[in-house]
Amino acid sequence: MYLEAITGPEDLKRLDRDELPLLAAEVRAALLQKLSRTGGHTGPNLGVVEATIALHYVFDSPQDRIVFDVSHQTYTHKMLTGRAEAFLDPAHYGDVTGFSSPYESEHDVATTGHTSTSVSWACGLATARDLTGGDWNVVAFIGDGSLSGGEAFEGLDLAGSMKNNLIVVVNDNDASIAPNVGGLYGNLAELRATGGRAGRNFFRDLGLDYRFVPDGNDLDALVDAFAEVKGIDHPIVVHIVTRKGNGYGPAERSPEAWHSTGPFDLATGEGGPKAPPELATITARHLVARMASEPDLVAVTAGTPGMFGFTPELRAQAGRQFLDVGIAEQSAVSVTAGLVRGGAKAVYGVMSTFLQRAYDQVAQDLCLDCVPACLAVFGGTLFAPHDATHHGFQDVPMLGNVPNLVYLAPTTVEQYLSALDWGIDQTDYPVAIKVPGGPVRHGAPCEKDWGRLNSFELVQDGRGIALVGLGSMFPVAERAAAIIEKRTGVTPALVNPLYASGVDGALLGELAGRCSVVVTLEDGIVSGGFGDKVARFYGPDRRVAVLCRGLAKQVRERYDVDELLRSVRMTPEQVADDAIAAVTS
Amino acid sequence: MYLEAITGPEDLKRLDRDELPLLAAEVRAALLQKLSRTGGHTGPNLGVVEATIALHYVFDSPQDRIVFDVSHQTYTHKMLTGRAEAFLDPAHYGDVTGFSSPYESEHDVATTGHTSTSVSWACGLATARDLTGGDWNVVAFIGDGSLSGGEAFEGLDLAGSMKNNLIVVVNDNDASIAPNVGGLYGNLAELRATGGRAGRNFFRDLGLDYRFVPDGNDLDALVDAFAEVKGIDHPIVVHIVTRKGNGYGPAERSPEAWHSTGPFDLATGEGGPKAPPELATITARHLVARMASEPDLVAVTAGTPGMFGFTPELRAQAGRQFLDVGIAEQSAVSVTAGLVRGGAKAVYGVMSTFLQRAYDQVAQDLCLDCVPACLAVFGGTLFAPHDATHHGFQDVPMLGNVPNLVYLAPTTVEQYLSALDWGIDQTDYPVAIKVPGGPVRHGAPCEKDWGRLNSFELVQDGRGIALVGLGSMFPVAERAAAIIEKRTGVTPALVNPLYASGVDGALLGELAGRCSVVVTLEDGIVSGGFGDKVARFYGPDRRVAVLCRGLAKQVRERYDVDELLRSVRMTPEQVADDAIAAVTS
Repeated sequence: MYLEAITGPEDLKRLDRDELPLLAAEVRAALLQKLSRTGGHTGPNLGVVEATIALHYVFDSPQDRIVFDVSHQTYTHKMLTGRAEAFLDPAHYGDVTGFSSPYESEHDVATTGHTSTSVSWACGLATARDLTGGDWNVVAFIGDGSLSGGEAFEGLDLAGSMKNNLIVVVNDNDASIAPNVGGLYGNLAELRATGGRAGRNFFRDLGLDYRFVPDGNDLDALVDAFAEVKGIDHPIVVHIVTRKGNGYGPAERSPEAWHSTGPFDLATGEGGPKAPPELATITARHLVARMASEPDLVAVTAGTPGMFGFTPELRAQAGRQFLDVGIAEQSAVSVTAGLVRGGAKAVYGVMSTFLQRAYDQVAQDLCLDCVPACLAVFGGTLFAPHDATHHGFQDVPMLGNVPNLVYLAPTTVEQYLSALDWGIDQTDYPVAIKVPGGPVRHGAPCEKDWGRLNSFELVQDGRGIALVGLGSMFPVAERAAAIIEKRTGVTPALVNPLYASGVDGALLGELAGRCSVVVTLEDGIVSGGFGDKVARFYGPDRRVAVLCRGLAKQVRERYDVDELLRSVRMTPEQVADDAIAAVTS
Repeated sequence: MYLEAITGPEDLKRLDRDELPLLAAEVRAALLQKLSRTGGHTGPNLGVVEATIALHYVFDSPQDRIVFDVSHQTYTHKMLTGRAEAFLDPAHYGDVTGFSSPYESEHDVATTGHTSTSVSWACGLATARDLTGGDWNVVAFIGDGSLSGGEAFEGLDLAGSMKNNLIVVVNDNDASIAPNVGGLYGNLAELRATGGRAGRNFFRDLGLDYRFVPDGNDLDALVDAFAEVKGIDHPIVVHIVTRKGNGYGPAERSPEAWHSTGPFDLATGEGGPKAPPELATITARHLVARMASEPDLVAVTAGTPGMFGFTPELRAQAGRQFLDVGIAEQSAVSVTAGLVRGGAKAVYGVMSTFLQRAYDQVAQDLCLDCVPACLAVFGGTLFAPHDATHHGFQDVPMLGNVPNLVYLAPTTVEQYLSALDWGIDQTDYPVAIKVPGGPVRHGAPCEKDWGRLNSFELVQDGRGIALVGLGSMFPVAERAAAIIEKRTGVTPALVNPLYASGVDGALLGELAGRCSVVVTLEDGIVSGGFGDKVARFYGPDRRVAVLCRGLAKQVRERYDVDELLRSVRMTPEQVADDAIAAVTS
């Protein structure tokens, strides 16, 4: 085994060039072995085994800086930079995150999980190098869909006006998550077809030098290409063509399904492709059913149809009523606004963490003019632990404070679909919906008149204590209420607010007459969130003590959900304990 | 006069083609007359008089949709769509905003003030048209720097894969606010030099058809070009070359200074170019002074050096230590992160409203890894009334709730520069600074140890009432304190928090022992802001009533500052009244 002996790039460099393919085979085997047990970004990592080996064989990390865009494809990089054990020994599988992280290694420039930032980073690194008299190389490694994000263009455009060493490796696998969208991919296809010699060349247009490597899984060709550009005195793009899922049949045949997988049977691939989350599937089916009789209803995604429940089959059913704008969240929001102003109805389905990319478009394109578009915000929940880059804990602070935006937080499937239908059909407000996290809950048919903004639902009247559980935290409030009643003999009030962007002053004011403690529970960061609004409402009222429960404002890596809830005193027992203590204090 | 008789595009269409230049002359005269009195976006509007006339002469707005990117260049459009009086009659100068607005006219698709969104809007409009069976034209009018923003690329990339009528007019004036930055502008220059025939063509590479108009101030050529593409069945770019400031010597000679001006002497141009705001100038001078002995200190702008105080003279002094990335806020944040990780010190100076474009990069690129970069956030204040698109009321809700970000809010120049120096020199946190708004205030030399995070300053101890005035609202708190003391004979506590992203639990807890009313005052939207954090802190404590003062969560157009303060009960007298009433209630 070569791999076990590699403690860092210097060990890799000791190998002869003709040994590299053997190392690649070992790396690929280790990847498959681990991924078949743990799941992960299978296709992207299989595609760049050779390119990563060649990068570290030629360049001198950490002196040379290699910035991996989106960085879900850095497993080989981790293996070659002292972290092989985390891929070879099942006992150490959990030692590394799924993305690059400077907390793990000096070879990782940044914790990166959102796309399209690497070239801008590289421009900053190169400028710093020149100002401080360094002579190292800066390499950005970008592709797998990241090129469609606007910041990639911003970075390439800036790089095109720079005059110093800056190497952009474009990893062209003709795919991102779903098939690529956008005119640029036509140009990449032309470049592939002509061996890089097409007259039309997006990169040269931006002032960048250009080199083409037709087989980006050919170690010899890669090592030659990288050696040639090492130490170059101007910005250059090295366009390499890789095969997503390379070396593993099931992943090569179905790149979308194998982008990110669960554990799978190594022999057959069975189990790998993940079904969309249940509520995403419910969403997509609901929308497709409506589309059949509403030709003006459009579902929009920014390159992530799966998390929105839109499998290839449902996309086919939706036809041109499903619009994938590519990984380009900003554009997705403006397109959605345009759809509505053009006379269509539109729902943009997006992960909370990725919607951060379009904060400004939400605030300006949608909200300044109250464009009645609908956003379905998935993954804004602590019930789905991810790596740090993909948590959706900030959606309420982010969306709940934007003027004119109505942010709804249903608890049950019935409430959610009712909110979704209202968001689509109404014509007055930009509406976003916090798709419930945690176990999918069904409830009574929902008759809610959502147009009565900020009309909270008093699920159970009571006195002494009022429990206000937002969205997926309502069930915790419900259970805490039962505990309190059992323990004190007094029925507490129980409120499902349903709205995350405002408070029901009438109801809260009324409750102050019979409750001296109000507890808010929310699924996300408490700072700037829903509870803060309740605390402000009761601020002037000395009769009422308010306890705001939610996550502290901090970055988290993967965690255990129950432990996390306990650590922020959000188990039903803790909520009951604290509320009772507050009444009697 | 033709202009006075034009109540809408139908009147324009009745003119003969050879009358259009006369109309253009009248429009230009009206523009100069009004702008010399009121100020505004002088250069951009002078440049597109002919293009706008030609658009409305050929296309049929509002049936055809014309989306103006950034829309600060829509004055002629307003004159031609029923709003001429607002440019001809000084009594009506205030009738229109400086940007497009559907609240003003059915000819305005959206309220637009941030760049680079128009092509995405056009894609959405075109898709809606096709789904609903319409046959109108969709026109995006983009340029004047907007092409460097990533969303413009996202939109063009998407347009390049569409198959329907979509016309993108690229208004190429070889300028934005400051001179253009980026490789793309090299390609535009090549296209200009070759009459549009250069082999390298950024737009064609994205799959778009292309037509070139060498003189974008030639009405005949424009009308011909637009007539030719009207009704086209696929996406096309019409690249027109205009002169920023066309027809007015001073503006033609100094496009940067004349991008946005104050009132000016029509004969000489005197008074037009605006000096940067005083604190911006102080900032730039301070940084340039440091740069002289610190070759690794870099100031970054995203195409708006002026608001950061970096005049052409100071830019020349800073040399390569001043980096303009073009209008590309996302890239600016990632570049800043790269600069710091590459060994430099970096300050990104940005308007609060534009930083919204980079919310995700702040949260991910800077904050996940605690990259110790510094952001100077200008214009996050109610003391600078703008049109709705440019208000910076959301900076505390936006930045104050991002994990790891330290958001400082100094009051005086001395505090501000001390905070700035600390932000640059420290190595632990991403730091943003809310540059004070309102009248520039000087104070005592600042000895603050900013590294003691969230250590509020107790400026005056007291009892009964505590006044907590953040940043530029501290002077109001100070004056309210004097009123309260005078009226009640009791000295209230007076706190300058200095930190907008957290609370000083020790101090606030201690104050609860002697104060029963705490009033927070902040310069921006109260929802999700600083006061909410104080309200949450005191939530469990029934001894203390908290009054949070700030702006309601709503969109505002221009306003009178004093009236606004009164309407939210933030004059010193009102604050004193309410605090005294709360103590005795």
